[in-house]
Amino acid sequence: MAGAHASNGRVVIERIESTVLRGNRAGDPHLRRVPVYLPPSYDSDAARRYPVAYLLTGFMGRGRMLLNDGAWSPSIDDRMDALVARGACDEMILVMPDCLSRYGGSQYLNSSATGRYQDHLVEELVPLIDARYRTLAERRHRGVMGKSSGGYGALVLGMRQPRVFGAVACHSGDLYFDYAYRGDVPKFCAAVQRAGGVEAWLAAFEAKLQKQHDDFTVLNILAMAASYSPNSEAEPFGIDFPCDFETGAFQDEVWQRWLEHDPLRMLEHHAEALRSLGLLYLDCGVRDEWQLHLGARMFERRLMELGIAHEYEEFDDGHLNVGYRYDVSLPKMARALTPRG
Amino acid sequence: MAGAHASNGRVVIERIESTVLRGNRAGDPHLRRVPVYLPPSYDSDAARRYPVAYLLTGFMGRGRMLLNDGAWSPSIDDRMDALVARGACDEMILVMPDCLSRYGGSQYLNSSATGRYQDHLVEELVPLIDARYRTLAERRHRGVMGKSSGGYGALVLGMRQPRVFGAVACHSGDLYFDYAYRGDVPKFCAAVQRAGGVEAWLAAFEAKLQKQHDDFTVLNILAMAASYSPNSEAEPFGIDFPCDFETGAFQDEVWQRWLEHDPLRMLEHHAEALRSLGLLYLDCGVRDEWQLHLGARMFERRLMELGIAHEYEEFDDGHLNVGYRYDVSLPKMARALTPRG
Amino acid sequence: MAGAHASNGRVVIERIESTVLRGNRAGDPHLRRVPVYLPPSYDSDAARRYPVAYLLTGFMGRGRMLLNDGAWSPSIDDRMDALVARGACDEMILVMPDCLSRYGGSQYLNSSATGRYQDHLVEELVPLIDARYRTLAERRHRGVMGKSSGGYGALVLGMRQPRVFGAVACHSGDLYFDYAYRGDVPKFCAAVQRAGGVEAWLAAFEAKLQKQHDDFTVLNILAMAASYSPNSEAEPFGIDFPCDFETGAFQDEVWQRWLEHDPLRMLEHHAEALRSLGLLYLDCGVRDEWQLHLGARMFERRLMELGIAHEYEEFDDGHLNVGYRYDVSLPKMARALTPRG
Amino acid sequence: MAGAHASNGRVVIERIESTVLRGNRAGDPHLRRVPVYLPPSYDSDAARRYPVAYLLTGFMGRGRMLLNDGAWSPSIDDRMDALVARGACDEMILVMPDCLSRYGGSQYLNSSATGRYQDHLVEELVPLIDARYRTLAERRHRGVMGKSSGGYGALVLGMRQPRVFGAVACHSGDLYFDYAYRGDVPKFCAAVQRAGGVEAWLAAFEAKLQKQHDDFTVLNILAMAASYSPNSEAEPFGIDFPCDFETGAFQDEVWQRWLEHDPLRMLEHHAEALRSLGLLYLDCGVRDEWQLHLGARMFERRLMELGIAHEYEEFDDGHLNVGYRYDVSLPKMARALTPRG
Repeated sequence: MAGAHASNGRVVIERIESTVLRGNRAGDPHLRRVPVYLPPSYDSDAARRYPVAYLLTGFMGRGRMLLNDGAWSPSIDDRMDALVARGACDEMILVMPDCLSRYGGSQYLNSSATGRYQDHLVEELVPLIDARYRTLAERRHRGVMGKSSGGYGALVLGMRQPRVFGAVACHSGDLYFDYAYRGDVPKFCAAVQRAGGVEAWLAAFEAKLQKQHDDFTVLNILAMAASYSPNSEAEPFGIDFPCDFETGAFQDEVWQRWLEHDPLRMLEHHAEALRSLGLLYLDCGVRDEWQLHLGARMFERRLMELGIAHEYEEFDDGHLNVGYRYDVSLPKMARALTPRG
Repeated sequence: MAGAHASNGRVVIERIESTVLRGNRAGDPHLRRVPVYLPPSYDSDAARRYPVAYLLTGFMGRGRMLLNDGAWSPSIDDRMDALVARGACDEMILVMPDCLSRYGGSQYLNSSATGRYQDHLVEELVPLIDARYRTLAERRHRGVMGKSSGGYGALVLGMRQPRVFGAVACHSGDLYFDYAYRGDVPKFCAAVQRAGGVEAWLAAFEAKLQKQHDDFTVLNILAMAASYSPNSEAEPFGIDFPCDFETGAFQDEVWQRWLEHDPLRMLEHHAEALRSLGLLYLDCGVRDEWQLHLGARMFERRLMELGIAHEYEEFDDGHLNVGYRYDVSLPKMARALTPRG
Repeated sequence: MAGAHASNGRVVIERIESTVLRGNRAGDPHLRRVPVYLPPSYDSDAARRYPVAYLLTGFMGRGRMLLNDGAWSPSIDDRMDALVARGACDEMILVMPDCLSRYGGSQYLNSSATGRYQDHLVEELVPLIDARYRTLAERRHRGVMGKSSGGYGALVLGMRQPRVFGAVACHSGDLYFDYAYRGDVPKFCAAVQRAGGVEAWLAAFEAKLQKQHDDFTVLNILAMAASYSPNSEAEPFGIDFPCDFETGAFQDEVWQRWLEHDPLRMLEHHAEALRSLGLLYLDCGVRDEWQLHLGARMFERRLMELGIAHEYEEFDDGHLNVGYRYDVSLPKMARALTPRG
Repeated sequence: MAGAHASNGRVVIERIESTVLRGNRAGDPHLRRVPVYLPPSYDSDAARRYPVAYLLTGFMGRGRMLLNDGAWSPSIDDRMDALVARGACDEMILVMPDCLSRYGGSQYLNSSATGRYQDHLVEELVPLIDARYRTLAERRHRGVMGKSSGGYGALVLGMRQPRVFGAVACHSGDLYFDYAYRGDVPKFCAAVQRAGGVEAWLAAFEAKLQKQHDDFTVLNILAMAASYSPNSEAEPFGIDFPCDFETGAFQDEVWQRWLEHDPLRMLEHHAEALRSLGLLYLDCGVRDEWQLHLGARMFERRLMELGIAHEYEEFDDGHLNVGYRYDVSLPKMARALTPRG
């Protein structure tokens, strides 16, 4: 950023042309802008290499939003600069991927309905960053973290991609789908019925100059279906839904496919990956509006039972407006990724 | 009511001492006040006998609340007087039972956790009314109707007590529990955990001078558990809950017991009872906040498949503040119950 | 009420045919139903005479609503019975006038736009009650009390009718109109402009099966204008409004007429009346949504400066759902009105 | 921004060290970051000079927030790029000043309580931009525009600084203070009383990790007082308030000082300035939550009476989430500022 203080980091907006996202079924762009935060000493200390943390945004987000400024909620670069300036956090590079889809998200998964976002991250973005920046290009110096859907993504990448990521921080991540999403399925079903089908609902949503709060509940279930129960045969979106719009009935067989993506279910098969992490940090607010703290507690209980090292923290608030928790996780992440000795 | 117009009905508050409710586990009174509306001609036409409709209130209600007056929402007696006065409704007696429990309701069921409310209605209240008033004391002249939990109660009584009730009207009744209640189980679980258990939660709730909106969501699940999954062994309330407060996990085996009380499941075994009704009326708002219209549509679809005569109506509004629909159902009920000849 | 316990009071619904309300400009009925609560000993102790408290409801209320039953908010008769039963309150008669107008209220004032409600109370209702019931028919045994608009009415009647009422209790009364109402004038103006005029707005409001929350803000200003700035020349309603619907501008000259009805302004001219009261009780919630506690504090401060005896109490809540405060004021009122000796 | 498409503009963040803001009483920084958007051809067409529009954010905003990205609400640079790309808007430079104060804003005025923000804009920022960029550095090629408090600022600068700005666009600007703010004074007064004074309220507000919605209503009145009724003698903030925290009473003499800053009052004395503008555009939503459209209509009516050329548009929505209206105003502004010939 032009004119940045010597003691501040700077942000570069990378433009990445994805091969794996090209021609994705949702019709989303394969050109993406990815902000990269370079820490204060990056330009002056030309020999130094830095650990990298990938920051995944929540639902309806993309990397650029982490740069959004608020009167009392600093952008991630300002936040990081402040942490570094007061000696609370080691320097590291932050990468802010864009995995947004037409449906508001991708859960950072591969899906025939949205796109191969996990592959995009692991096969395209990580190598590009390591090629263009002076990174410490090893798993133990590379972490992934995020909030809500981004917390989910971080946890899942930590389980499935242990060769890529060596540290995970998950803020208020989507856990225990029976609580996190299931209660919104009837609202989704009712709204879609009222609109006359998913196609009509989505067209009306996209045409609205001002989206309404209730719309996002519907969109959320739509995005989760696109992520967890894609079906390339299903017209027009390639998505199976957890309810039958004709009868209104809940579709248990679709739901079972969702559950396979629930970190609580995945945990057992990925215990070794989790055990190998340099940092496994989770938190949640005990007034989470989707009761995600109940899932977080179950996850934590299972980690304890399996003897997997981790840190777990609860806050006395809800799901939204919790950017201040990065002040907790960024230092932990930096410490875990920074070479010792 | 003293000084009532000659052309108006009057309300008598019956006090009934229940035997079956005595010593109920919830500690609720066995003395109940039951308003009885006597139609305009009741006092002047001393030889005439009248059909009777039992009006069941929704959650957190008891019969007296049907008499509550609002600037733009008349009490049930005023509403009935107006309907009769303009010739829109035949005269009938209205009985307003009190099946309220400490938990906000009983679903008009027998439960070891609340009390034998179904027995109270059928074995105690109906005979008492027939004894004290000039009723047409036959099934075909006796109906049951209600809203929300009261609509549920009416439907269930119509299925289980065909020898007692010959007509049913169900406004926005609790149907398809997978949608109606399940989404609130996590909220219930979280609130109870925060309070330190059901006992602590209930004590705090009862001590509050001003109950809060969110409290009622929690209380609702508590009341449904008391109604659908009582367990006389369980301390201190004799209730099994659909979640484990220790782990937070959903309890599927308890949930299966709830589902046995879902009218959508009961329907198959009570098709004959439903077929025998003189009136089977259902309605719902298509913006119902608990999406009960989805269940209503499923129920209606099944009625059609089984060839059971019924009337079904949808309104373009939600779950609350729908007293105006009595202007639709009371005339239908009166017509169905009134002897032709 | 039929079947009341020997130890309970009973409620009689008086029907009163008002002369002064006949032909009122708002077109409201001159026949009114007025519930009268007779205390437990009234029927058994045929020689005894009782003090009387007139209970005035808030905006959009009429006397009958004080009988409304709630699962955790008892009707006024149940509340009074409970107070008497536990020895907390002397027996007295409670009278619940109906001064509701088409606009949701009358502020218990005389107005050419609504009707002569103050005259109705003082000249018609009080004599009728004293004639029909065994009252202690003297000022020092007759009190007036109420909540919100009813608290306003009680305070104004205490100031203007000292020969009639000897005790006043005012819960969250309308005080300091600059705060209580003025902030809602723009909302009123905007809503009326959108509707195309007051006539159109009112017609649309009255036609709605379900009134909306925002409607009541508009209706409130309409009712206050009808009460405070009537103008028999103004068509069609006989009301001057505090804003010009054409330009939208605030009308200060109309506002000044409102202010003449502000108890804070009236206080100076009625200090003697207030000083003569056997009880002058005021309260307010410190989170009052209309900030009426600010006005209450100013009123109290002025009472102190003038050396007028009074009791003032604050509660840590808001404007609504505060029926529990009758448990405070009814005993005080009964004590003040009961003959000592 | 690194990696921008050839066809896109780019954003430079200017860091400006203000002399006039140094040592301001509110303690806010005199170093400010000011984003500057340079249009697509800026780098390739090195001889070309461009008109400049100053974009003023609303309450609690600063220039950087105009760059905030949303899934369905593009940042101002993306929005401008898209307008230019589809030929809807001439190229121009956009400057996004930072006039945020501790209180959430400055109304772009000089005030001894906040700072000399108007001077900062006119005397410091405009010259700096003209010095560093290839601007058309004349009044007729320099415009000012904004939303809410920024719309207010644009209008006031258009009136007071006609030698600097030759075009104005005001979206939902603060107009007619009697409606815009006055209704929130009681809420402000009550909140400050509850907190134990302004100092305590502000300290508590600043300490909160998560600001609450109601806080902003209070902060808004605080900021307006700092902007409209500063008093360098008043401790500790140098602000006079429109209410007395001791008695709660409204302070009319302070309010009169506010009104001097109401554009509706200022209009008469600045008619010539307004008449000289190349563009005077105003809009408002007819469901504005602060009823600002009532003030906008009054302003427009007065413009008509005075024969001042202008454009006025209404939208069927409210005050928030109206960024889409920049798609209307940016092209108008660019057209007005672009040299013809």
